[in-house]
Amino acid sequence: MQQLLDRMKKDGIIIDDNILKVDTFLNHKVDPKLMKKIGQEFINRFKDSYITKILTIESSGISPALFTAYDLDVDMVFARKKKSLTMSDDVYQTEVFSYTKKETNNLIVSKNLINSDDNVLVIDDFLANGEAAKSLANIIEQAGANLIGFGIVIEKTFQSGREKLNHEGYRVESLARIKSIEKGNVYFY
Amino acid sequence: MQQLLDRMKKDGIIIDDNILKVDTFLNHKVDPKLMKKIGQEFINRFKDSYITKILTIESSGISPALFTAYDLDVDMVFARKKKSLTMSDDVYQTEVFSYTKKETNNLIVSKNLINSDDNVLVIDDFLANGEAAKSLANIIEQAGANLIGFGIVIEKTFQSGREKLNHEGYRVESLARIKSIEKGNVYFY
Repeated sequence: MQQLLDRMKKDGIIIDDNILKVDTFLNHKVDPKLMKKIGQEFINRFKDSYITKILTIESSGISPALFTAYDLDVDMVFARKKKSLTMSDDVYQTEVFSYTKKETNNLIVSKNLINSDDNVLVIDDFLANGEAAKSLANIIEQAGANLIGFGIVIEKTFQSGREKLNHEGYRVESLARIKSIEKGNVYFY
Repeated sequence: MQQLLDRMKKDGIIIDDNILKVDTFLNHKVDPKLMKKIGQEFINRFKDSYITKILTIESSGISPALFTAYDLDVDMVFARKKKSLTMSDDVYQTEVFSYTKKETNNLIVSKNLINSDDNVLVIDDFLANGEAAKSLANIIEQAGANLIGFGIVIEKTFQSGREKLNHEGYRVESLARIKSIEKGNVYFY
């Protein structure tokens, strides 16, 4: 998606050879017009699929997921990392280790929000090692729902996420695929 | 906002006399069409103000904030509760106690995302005791920006939030104002 690549080149900040910081348009400050375009592109990529629900993870997945859901006229569910006091115990739950934050989080979705009739498209901001994506797949499996695939805004192809997901037979569509980050430059496929 | 009140009556779940659970359309599963309408209503309420940025808190504030920002054609910033590894130390930071989660969180916003030229509208899903709202006001003050006011989806008027914010001279616009929750019924203003 050219508009996204252009924005990453213009405003992405290279932290090291593994991390491109995109917090001025995607995951801290958010550009809503770009999120709208991203949503439209996900819909275009998955136009052959019948989607009844969007699933993402708080917090950075919410913005691209919301516009995708809006244009598809379906609801969006975001998995929570912590149980709030208003949540019942009737939840799907799984663990996920975040390499960025160096901590293990729970991923929790109330059981009444996804059911076995759902065809679920997962949206997330990044695909790196695939741990979060696999955990979301696990929740969808617990719900007995159908997993359509993964819509990823930015894929770090030099990590093992896509390989793991493809190995499980899941479809992955990424709007920007980083080949490598080297000596202060980002290279895309 | 009638559509919101209707939805709260239809799908809100009363947990006790203090808590109405709205996780099937606002803060776990999200109805994007309703969020769009909520954004339009915030814009209508603040139509006399010149707004350059929307500020909210992860995660439940993001959905209503994003549509407000989209229709205003401005960026949306969500304050983070935890510092990620990609964030620098150059941040505005303040503490906020969550009565719902019984924990103290930090609220963190990178300094480069709000500046002294900004006219900031704060959007959040709930106003209860006003602690989160006051912390966001504090961050805007640290940035030297102008705080336009607070756009709140659901206000619990029987808690002290509005009183605290009005005492500080802040404008508060709430789309649903709960008067009380008693014996399994929700009463609105």
